[in-house]
Amino acid sequence: MSEAREFKHIGQRTIRPDGFDKVTGKANYGADLSLPGMIWGAILRSPHAHANITKLDVSRAEANPDVLAIATFEDFPSVNAAAQRDGTQRDGMMDTACNILANQKVLYHGHAVAAIAARSEAAAIAALDLIDIEYEVLRPVLSIDDAISAQAPILHETMMTQGLAEPATKASNISARMELKKGDIEAGFAAADVIVERAYDTPTVHQGYIEPHATTVVFNENGPSMIWCPTQGHFDVRARVAQLLNLELGQIKVVASEIGGGFGGKTTVYLEPVALILSRKSGRPVKMEMSRGDVFRASGPASASQSLIKVGAKMDGTITAMQATLHYEAGAFQGSPMGPGCMTVFTPYDVENLYVEGFDVVVNKPKVAAYRAPGAPQSEFAAEMAVNELAKKIGMDPIEFRLKNAAKEGTQTIYGPKLKVVGLEACLEAAKASPHYNAPIPENVGRGLAAGFWFNIGGQSSVIINLNPDGTGTIIEGSPDIGGSRASMQMMAAEILGVAPSSLNPIVADTEHVAYNQTTGGSRTTFATGMAVVEAAEDIVEQLKARAAAMWNVTAEQVDFKDGVAHNLTGEDQLTLADICASAEKTGGQISGRANINARGAGPSFAVHICDIKVDKETGKTDVVRYTAIQDAGKAIHPSYVEGQFQGGAVQGIGWALNEEYVYSKDGIMENAGFLDYRIPLASDLPEIEAIIVEVPNSFHPFGVRGVGETGIIPPLAAVGTAVAEAIGQPISSLPCSPPKILKLLMSAQ
Amino acid sequence: MSEAREFKHIGQRTIRPDGFDKVTGKANYGADLSLPGMIWGAILRSPHAHANITKLDVSRAEANPDVLAIATFEDFPSVNAAAQRDGTQRDGMMDTACNILANQKVLYHGHAVAAIAARSEAAAIAALDLIDIEYEVLRPVLSIDDAISAQAPILHETMMTQGLAEPATKASNISARMELKKGDIEAGFAAADVIVERAYDTPTVHQGYIEPHATTVVFNENGPSMIWCPTQGHFDVRARVAQLLNLELGQIKVVASEIGGGFGGKTTVYLEPVALILSRKSGRPVKMEMSRGDVFRASGPASASQSLIKVGAKMDGTITAMQATLHYEAGAFQGSPMGPGCMTVFTPYDVENLYVEGFDVVVNKPKVAAYRAPGAPQSEFAAEMAVNELAKKIGMDPIEFRLKNAAKEGTQTIYGPKLKVVGLEACLEAAKASPHYNAPIPENVGRGLAAGFWFNIGGQSSVIINLNPDGTGTIIEGSPDIGGSRASMQMMAAEILGVAPSSLNPIVADTEHVAYNQTTGGSRTTFATGMAVVEAAEDIVEQLKARAAAMWNVTAEQVDFKDGVAHNLTGEDQLTLADICASAEKTGGQISGRANINARGAGPSFAVHICDIKVDKETGKTDVVRYTAIQDAGKAIHPSYVEGQFQGGAVQGIGWALNEEYVYSKDGIMENAGFLDYRIPLASDLPEIEAIIVEVPNSFHPFGVRGVGETGIIPPLAAVGTAVAEAIGQPISSLPCSPPKILKLLMSAQ
Repeated sequence: MSEAREFKHIGQRTIRPDGFDKVTGKANYGADLSLPGMIWGAILRSPHAHANITKLDVSRAEANPDVLAIATFEDFPSVNAAAQRDGTQRDGMMDTACNILANQKVLYHGHAVAAIAARSEAAAIAALDLIDIEYEVLRPVLSIDDAISAQAPILHETMMTQGLAEPATKASNISARMELKKGDIEAGFAAADVIVERAYDTPTVHQGYIEPHATTVVFNENGPSMIWCPTQGHFDVRARVAQLLNLELGQIKVVASEIGGGFGGKTTVYLEPVALILSRKSGRPVKMEMSRGDVFRASGPASASQSLIKVGAKMDGTITAMQATLHYEAGAFQGSPMGPGCMTVFTPYDVENLYVEGFDVVVNKPKVAAYRAPGAPQSEFAAEMAVNELAKKIGMDPIEFRLKNAAKEGTQTIYGPKLKVVGLEACLEAAKASPHYNAPIPENVGRGLAAGFWFNIGGQSSVIINLNPDGTGTIIEGSPDIGGSRASMQMMAAEILGVAPSSLNPIVADTEHVAYNQTTGGSRTTFATGMAVVEAAEDIVEQLKARAAAMWNVTAEQVDFKDGVAHNLTGEDQLTLADICASAEKTGGQISGRANINARGAGPSFAVHICDIKVDKETGKTDVVRYTAIQDAGKAIHPSYVEGQFQGGAVQGIGWALNEEYVYSKDGIMENAGFLDYRIPLASDLPEIEAIIVEVPNSFHPFGVRGVGETGIIPPLAAVGTAVAEAIGQPISSLPCSPPKILKLLMSAQ
Repeated sequence: MSEAREFKHIGQRTIRPDGFDKVTGKANYGADLSLPGMIWGAILRSPHAHANITKLDVSRAEANPDVLAIATFEDFPSVNAAAQRDGTQRDGMMDTACNILANQKVLYHGHAVAAIAARSEAAAIAALDLIDIEYEVLRPVLSIDDAISAQAPILHETMMTQGLAEPATKASNISARMELKKGDIEAGFAAADVIVERAYDTPTVHQGYIEPHATTVVFNENGPSMIWCPTQGHFDVRARVAQLLNLELGQIKVVASEIGGGFGGKTTVYLEPVALILSRKSGRPVKMEMSRGDVFRASGPASASQSLIKVGAKMDGTITAMQATLHYEAGAFQGSPMGPGCMTVFTPYDVENLYVEGFDVVVNKPKVAAYRAPGAPQSEFAAEMAVNELAKKIGMDPIEFRLKNAAKEGTQTIYGPKLKVVGLEACLEAAKASPHYNAPIPENVGRGLAAGFWFNIGGQSSVIINLNPDGTGTIIEGSPDIGGSRASMQMMAAEILGVAPSSLNPIVADTEHVAYNQTTGGSRTTFATGMAVVEAAEDIVEQLKARAAAMWNVTAEQVDFKDGVAHNLTGEDQLTLADICASAEKTGGQISGRANINARGAGPSFAVHICDIKVDKETGKTDVVRYTAIQDAGKAIHPSYVEGQFQGGAVQGIGWALNEEYVYSKDGIMENAGFLDYRIPLASDLPEIEAIIVEVPNSFHPFGVRGVGETGIIPPLAAVGTAVAEAIGQPISSLPCSPPKILKLLMSAQ
């Protein structure tokens, strides 16, 4: 990959193919499909954070003439037999089932218990009152400290901590322990001149996608049943529902609707299997929607965390050792992103001695889901805060300190591979050269800087490109578009085929019309599905050459294809792609390109953010006055979308750092389950986020793509935290830096 | 192709994949799609058969608040400029446009003039009365004799007869003449001992599909517009609408709904472009439906015909010459199936001297469309009647007479190629051996026998097969299923892949999700799309072998794949298709098979039918008392469907022969535009049609398929005609043999 490579479409800011439908309201989201004969489902949710269900009698509801079907945990046939709570090894499917409809026990406020389908939404909601349910309320576990204390109620009697040196002998709220190490951590700290050690914590936060979960389904006992829903991975919706309802994959068709935000939170199932049970029982299409309150209380927020960080360095700025103990809340069922949290925490640094220990802890909150670079913002927040504190202690500029220790080609990661060419140094240099970093810090303003790392991933993608007889065509892909990937696919295919991007319509096909694609997440889509698009387009180019050769009576090797035109190398003849398509009938039928891949070679992504924050010392209110996000995209296929990803990640990280948090009462009742009380940053709250695209190509992708979706949410936590600390002259160790907390810090310092 | 080849699935009577949805009412037909915000379109139709439009003022309708859009011929942008009736060469697109919405002149009763979209269907229909329209009524031309007479009004002032020896010098109602010949026709007749010469005629008949035309469309000025309709060829709907509305193919997506019968009649467009104009103007989804009366008056029935046949033979039964002069009504615009009528008329016979002349004639009736073996029933009716009369004259059994002269491998056809291996002799032998032919003829019953020939066709098909990680999968094809082709595709793919047919879901994809496929018709689908399915499945087998090889660390050549299982030829290892799919992630991603072909080698199809008819000599009423249909399928993939095609063809041919006909008043008003007055045979009218499948494989198809959809409608006309002639002891030369006509013949003979 030469950096001087010239592109015709890639790197341009083309018109987004989904834009018109979205701005005109024509795009159909999760709640936008209604079907003839459709009925509505509603869910009875737990008012308690932790309780045994002592009675569940649906007979009065069943007798209601408006009620056409009722679903409970008993309706998961394949997990039901295995789900005797006290006698079975826990497994993911059972947890998923128990999270979707509680089995004998509710584990968080809002936990679904039963569902009713009725002739109208109002009737379904009203009929919930006819379910006779009684609870034995238990003490809730609402924090990591509480969960791991000896006195804590145990959420799951069968949960034994995995990953201990000695097998666990009794049930625990810690589901798993993980340990990663490199070098000699003791020797590393012994070699340090200065050591910073501090505990940090981050709150439960929500992805805050604007579109609530919703689904419309039709059960078909013969043909495939249909599920329509907004999801980042309709193939995984299919797999999960098939497993829960004991169906073959071919018996379910999932259609990914347009999606109003996911950010990792739309990678699992809540309503879909329930709706399908209700449809099966009623013989009717069923629609279900979550309210905003349901979304907050009972979808999958991001883990709250506690991190103990210890970093040592020599006075010359060389970091000698880094150590972390990380606790992640999993919510009611095991499975936090503790693993990637441990793997990413120190990866921006090329340090010889590392030690990381992580714990996955269950609490009486909703089961967490992925949220942009899952696990990384929490752990890297802590690490970056400590690094900044250390840099300050030894009197080094935070960029210089990072440049001295920056991860680079050849750095041995704590989790396995050595890094290939990466762009952290380039990002740090770009930060150093940025107008923002070179601007003086205004009065009453603190400036913070932080780095971030995310792996990016590859994985399985399948693509078909169909050309029409007039040379227009469709790109049939299976990656739901949460960040502009349709535009990227269009541009990459257009680049290879030498046609206008707008002549190729990118379509996110349902699970029947394209082969398996992994979920959109991990920043895999533009990389991996993009590779599949390129391969499918190259497959077409080979066919175009063969077809032109047949028309010219030469061999395919005697044909060159460039910028959409085939050239007969034995003469002067030329045929455009459209010419060849128009004649395809005569040369063997119309043309389709195909690619099924499991993409390897994802390019790690680094970012550096700079944040200026002004703090009102009377009220503790914070204002971001300037913000710059610098990130290595590898290659920005569509720069506007890339900038949008940088900006969106920054904004979500800023919200996480400054204001967002789940507020629970002592009984475990979520008290701020709405956008009025759960405070995400609005456009009016923030300055324009300055986006600087660094391009250090990923040599494993034909155009150099790394993926840009995740990393941008990582640096803001520490950039903001450091900026606030600088502004108030106090260390920050707990997010969010909300006005009450800031005020408390300011007052305690007086 | 060995006839002894053993199949696992092919030839079985598997459960039809579309059956459940159809019998439970879940299948969605043309009128079954409604969309949010949808409005309704209605069409103003001409009350006259032939008239100039002297005034067309839509302003009162436009002023109606319920009316959201109006469409007239002026809305066809690309044809409008070229459509000055008296100054332009006629072309197909202009004719299509003028047929869809009349341009200055109406040419048949029911001809569409203008369309209105309004908030409800009732409002749209009511608003038609607000269109101010005035006509100058012209004398209609309602028969071939009238059309070709010197005094006839000319329908199209620019229409000059094509195909004359000397270029035409003045406008005519004959659009084209065609001539085919072989040998020396004069010498042939000179060599004959006996000659039969007789004129025959057949009426205008309708395909009688149960589902009227209907469509729902959404115009989208940015993304692709969507058209939902029942059609035999959604790709051709796309092409025609794109041409009429000056759009790229990529700007239109056509979804083929389930289809309630087509038989050739759903191969063109009527409502679709009009609805799209109305949707574009209104910004709303638009639904349009034809009434049954509209379908009769203004869709595309089959040509009425006049045939003059002359056949000569020696007393030993050798046919020495066959001659035909064929006139086909095209309806209001040129383009009857005169061509195939000429090509097929004598093809069942291996005769040295042939001469055929055909004429395409316009009349003031709806423009004809294809109807099962278009053109062949009319001409072959006449030829078979004459052949039967000749056989009788020389005292030969009609089967023996045909066997003596039967087309066979090597026969030089009048239209070009020599026949490859064909099954006419096998069908004649099967007829001779059939229980029916060997049963005595009951009293008052006549027995008739006739043969039939249809080419069958190949053409372009594209198929993708996607396998799921559990080994189930989908067959993505683009051939609307009018006769059970989904079952056949499933079985052919299952045969190659060695899996249960039910594990592969055959899907007729829309125009975006699969590459171009020709229209389902000509009996091409099981042959050509079947070949594509086989090729796609074989493509998968190659990949399965490669994947298994990768898992075993051997070469693909060291792997055999048989009955769904890969075998490691270097050892004992086996992997099922499902095993390989489950591991596909590790071996390169999931698996799709692909085929884009232009299928050659369609296998001609012959049939022989035997009919016993009892005639009530008091009333002229006919009763089919026994009927046997014998046909060469090549290979019957799903015998039940093949028998169904034989039976359905026979029943439609019986209706054509006995009762069906368009009845026009002298003013050209269709007087029987409904199923009460247009008499198609009902189940209660007929005995079980005995179906005998002959299998003479087509060596160009991997399983020997020829295609069975068309030929079965050809022999009934002469088999019935001859049976009636035998029963009443009078020659039959005019269809239908309706009670009044029979009675008239009986009375004239008394």
